Amino acid sequence: MTRHLPLDRGAGIAIWRQIMEWLKAEIASGAFATGSRLPPESEIADQFGVNRHTVRRAIAELSSEGILRADQGRGTFVATTPLSYPIGTRTRFSDIMSEQNQTPEGRLLGSSLEPADALRAKCLEVPAGTPLIRLETLRIAGGVPVIAGTSWFEERRFPALVSDYAETGSVTKAMARAGVTDYTRKESRVSAALVSEEDAGHLELAPGSPVLLVDSVNVDGFGKPVHCSRSRMASGRMQLVIES
Amino acid sequence: MTRHLPLDRGAGIAIWRQIMEWLKAEIASGAFATGSRLPPESEIADQFGVNRHTVRRAIAELSSEGILRADQGRGTFVATTPLSYPIGTRTRFSDIMSEQNQTPEGRLLGSSLEPADALRAKCLEVPAGTPLIRLETLRIAGGVPVIAGTSWFEERRFPALVSDYAETGSVTKAMARAGVTDYTRKESRVSAALVSEEDAGHLELAPGSPVLLVDSVNVDGFGKPVHCSRSRMASGRMQLVIES
Repeated sequence: MTRHLPLDRGAGIAIWRQIMEWLKAEIASGAFATGSRLPPESEIADQFGVNRHTVRRAIAELSSEGILRADQGRGTFVATTPLSYPIGTRTRFSDIMSEQNQTPEGRLLGSSLEPADALRAKCLEVPAGTPLIRLETLRIAGGVPVIAGTSWFEERRFPALVSDYAETGSVTKAMARAGVTDYTRKESRVSAALVSEEDAGHLELAPGSPVLLVDSVNVDGFGKPVHCSRSRMASGRMQLVIES
Repeated sequence: MTRHLPLDRGAGIAIWRQIMEWLKAEIASGAFATGSRLPPESEIADQFGVNRHTVRRAIAELSSEGILRADQGRGTFVATTPLSYPIGTRTRFSDIMSEQNQTPEGRLLGSSLEPADALRAKCLEVPAGTPLIRLETLRIAGGVPVIAGTSWFEERRFPALVSDYAETGSVTKAMARAGVTDYTRKESRVSAALVSEEDAGHLELAPGSPVLLVDSVNVDGFGKPVHCSRSRMASGRMQLVIES
């Protein structure tokens, strides 16, 4: 650690959270590499001018997220490096995770039938009110939840989508069963937000952690939108990679 | 608003901040469009089951960030839509902002000479310890700060970079003066974090707001890295757009 983190008192963010987020950012940036040992709690506490218990709370949260790992008597170690999620025309979760030796899994959290609101109508290029299937999913890599996602599909085009997804755990496979054997990502819009309580539960994140919000539009071979989604990615576990 | 935001008590995030972040996300998603009026404070307070003063604090922060605008007697209105920052091979802040009718500005916040640490050495493909210029900048669009950035350059290659940047307010122009008339972005890695206190000041963000962290590598015509940077983008004001 080369410098102090200036702590904000009165910012509406508890001090332990600020230290936790600082540690997470240092790990994500590579300043603390996977397998390396953290400085002792007392040293971190001195650097921030806080009580050891405050640092302990931050470390406990990161341990519960699987980012740190305590090794009795030896110290606390960095357990993971964020996975990479390359964004391109052919962005397939299963392939991306398999290439990084992570067993991919897609879990159906819920689904509903709803009329297209203005945003979804625009995204899917259908009239407002068109019946859409809304799918709530959780994507897991190597046993760790990494993305909570909401997807919208035109019901007329994908009548069996929910059961196909539940069976295959893959949007790509479910769409292929309806005859859309290929699709490409046309656009992704990326912003940052604090995790919602619901997502925090599914993603096993400390409530209030920052997440990446990715809104994407996928089109079929004719350029017609077939799948619009809003993904929330656990930012300490996954980073987007855009290569040119 | 179609559903309640479940508030997290004991998450280390003040309730007013949670409401503020919810509003920001609704605005970013387009659920509350630019120019539209927010529901009255009392209505939002009822929906969340909180005191009106809590909602007022959230609205005051968003107003100070320029995202909301109070119109005496008429209510509170959504003032802005996030600007788009397309990520591609030729990602030029000035061009991107000009295309969106925003006057771009680059301000020098500070600079230093430092030996390359392991991360920067890897990024710039130079030996560790190589003298680097570290540039701290603030990018402003239409008078509003949108990106705080740290950039690293090899000193030997860009000896006058600091003064050239101070004069031109543009990394592209400063690099051109040293003979690098063209460069392309090779890679961007994107994650989310909470803003640091220092950046919160420069970006005029409420302390603890989520930001997009973008680490990028830029190469010259020979594929040699010439400029590595870490940008922190104010997430309510700017979103990344990746088109395929």
